[in-house]
Amino acid sequence: MKVIKTIAEMREVRRSIDKDVGFVPTMGYLHDGHLALAAQAKKENPVVMASIFVNPTQFGPREDLAGYPRDIPRDLKMLESVKTDFVFIPPAEEMYPPRASTWVNVEKVTDRLEGAVRPGHFRGVATVVTKLFNIVQPTRAYFGQKDAQQCVVIKRMVTDLDMDLEVVICPTVREKDGLAMSSRNTYLKPDERKAATVLYQSLKLAERLYTEGERNAETIRRKMADLIKQQPLANIDYISIAHNETLEELDVVKPPALISLVVKIGRPRLLDNIILK
Amino acid sequence: MKVIKTIAEMREVRRSIDKDVGFVPTMGYLHDGHLALAAQAKKENPVVMASIFVNPTQFGPREDLAGYPRDIPRDLKMLESVKTDFVFIPPAEEMYPPRASTWVNVEKVTDRLEGAVRPGHFRGVATVVTKLFNIVQPTRAYFGQKDAQQCVVIKRMVTDLDMDLEVVICPTVREKDGLAMSSRNTYLKPDERKAATVLYQSLKLAERLYTEGERNAETIRRKMADLIKQQPLANIDYISIAHNETLEELDVVKPPALISLVVKIGRPRLLDNIILK
Repeated sequence: MKVIKTIAEMREVRRSIDKDVGFVPTMGYLHDGHLALAAQAKKENPVVMASIFVNPTQFGPREDLAGYPRDIPRDLKMLESVKTDFVFIPPAEEMYPPRASTWVNVEKVTDRLEGAVRPGHFRGVATVVTKLFNIVQPTRAYFGQKDAQQCVVIKRMVTDLDMDLEVVICPTVREKDGLAMSSRNTYLKPDERKAATVLYQSLKLAERLYTEGERNAETIRRKMADLIKQQPLANIDYISIAHNETLEELDVVKPPALISLVVKIGRPRLLDNIILK
Repeated sequence: MKVIKTIAEMREVRRSIDKDVGFVPTMGYLHDGHLALAAQAKKENPVVMASIFVNPTQFGPREDLAGYPRDIPRDLKMLESVKTDFVFIPPAEEMYPPRASTWVNVEKVTDRLEGAVRPGHFRGVATVVTKLFNIVQPTRAYFGQKDAQQCVVIKRMVTDLDMDLEVVICPTVREKDGLAMSSRNTYLKPDERKAATVLYQSLKLAERLYTEGERNAETIRRKMADLIKQQPLANIDYISIAHNETLEELDVVKPPALISLVVKIGRPRLLDNIILK
C-alpha cells in the first residue's frame, strides 16, 4: 500500500494506471463500515484508492473541526488489512489555497434533514468530493448508506454534472446489537451506548409496521417516536419518511422510501436509516 | 467531421480516443474568433472537438434566449473548414433534465463587471462548462480573451475544482478596423458599426498612456471615457482597470492588469478588453 501526500503525486500515480479504480473517500478515524466500502471496492476493481481528508468546509462554525478524532497510523493499518492499494492524504492548504472561491451547490435535496440543520454542510461535501473525483478520477466511488442524505446528494451531483463514474452505495454496517457504526459512537458513555440501540429498534419497528400493511407515514413516525421516548437518554432531533431521491416527506408510504432519524444521546447526534424496497 | 447529438454517443466516442483532445465550447453562430480557437486547438492536439449549445442557464430572465442567433448548417461548414474532428450538439433536455439542481458557483470574481450586471450568468456558464468538460474530457480547452471575465472565471474554476485539463486563452480576433469579433456585431446598423470602433480606439489610447508612463488608473479611465463620449451613438456601461486574476479594481496600474469596457451602441452591449503585460 502506497501513501500519497500531494495532489501532484496523486495525478502522476493516476496517470500511470490504466485499469478500473475503485475509490473510497473518508475523513479518517475508520471503522468497519469504511472497511466494508474498501472491501467491496476491492471486489469490483483491480485498483482501490482511499482518501483521508478531514474536510474543513463541511464543518459549520459551531462544529468542532479541530476536535474531530484523528488516528492516521491506525487508519493506514486498517486500510492495508483490506488490501487498499493507495491512500491519498492531501494537506488542507493544497485542497483549499487562499484564493479558492468555487463551490458545488446541490440544491433542493439539501434543503431538508441534515441540510436544514447544518447549513453549508453539503456544499462542503459536494465541493470536496468533486475535487477528489477530479484528482483521483475513479471508475467507481463507494459511499455508505449510513449517511443517507449524502448518498442522495452525491448521486444527484454526479448525474447533474455528468461526472463519468459510478456511485456505489453500500449497506450500513452495524454492531451486533444493531447500532450503526460511526466515528461518533466513540463519544458515547456506557449507558448512552446501551440507549443508542433505540435508533435501530425504531427503524425495525417501522419496517414491521410497513410489512404488516401500514401506509400512513405519520402513524409510523408517531409510533417510532413513542418507542424512542421510552428511552430517557434519547432526544429526538427528527424522524423522516421521505422519497429516497427527492427527499420530500411522504404522507403515504411507498417505495423507494427512506426512513431516517437523528437522535441525540448525550453529546453526539446519532444518525440511522433504512430504505423500504 | 462527425456530428454527435447525444451525451451517450459523445461518451462512447471519447472512450474510443486515446489521444490528446482539444475542445472548443461555443454557443454557435460562429465567427472568425471561434475558428481561430479551433485552429489553435488543431495545432496543439491530434483531435479537436467543438460543441454548439445555446446554454439556457446563462441567460437572465430579461435576456433573449429564444432570439439568440442560430445557424447550425453554416456553423458546421465553418468548423469543417478548420478541420474540426467532432462537433457535439447536445439537446437542452439532455443537458438539463427536470430534476437537475446542481450548480457550480465561482464566487468573488463573479461579483464584478459582467457578473454584477448579469446575476446568475456565470453560474450558468460555470455549470455548463463543467458538464461539457465531464462529458468531453478534453486535454486542453480553448476560450477567447474577448470574454475576459469568462476566462478568469473558467481558470479559477478549473484550478479550484482540480479539473485535469489545461485552459488555453486565445487572443481576441478583430475586424480590420479593430472591432472585436462577436455574434452581437450582427445587430449593428451601418452607422453603429462605424461608431463601434471607438471601443478599440479607447483601449489603444489606454495602452499608449500606460506605455508613456501613466500609472493612475482613474486618469486612464477618464481619458478613455472622454474619447468614447465624443461618439454620440456610444453609451458607456462601464470602464474597468482591474487585476487580471482577482478582478479587483486598481488605483495604480501594474501588470497583470485587465482593461475592459462595455459600451452600448444601439441595441447591443459591446465588450472589449486588453491585458497590459
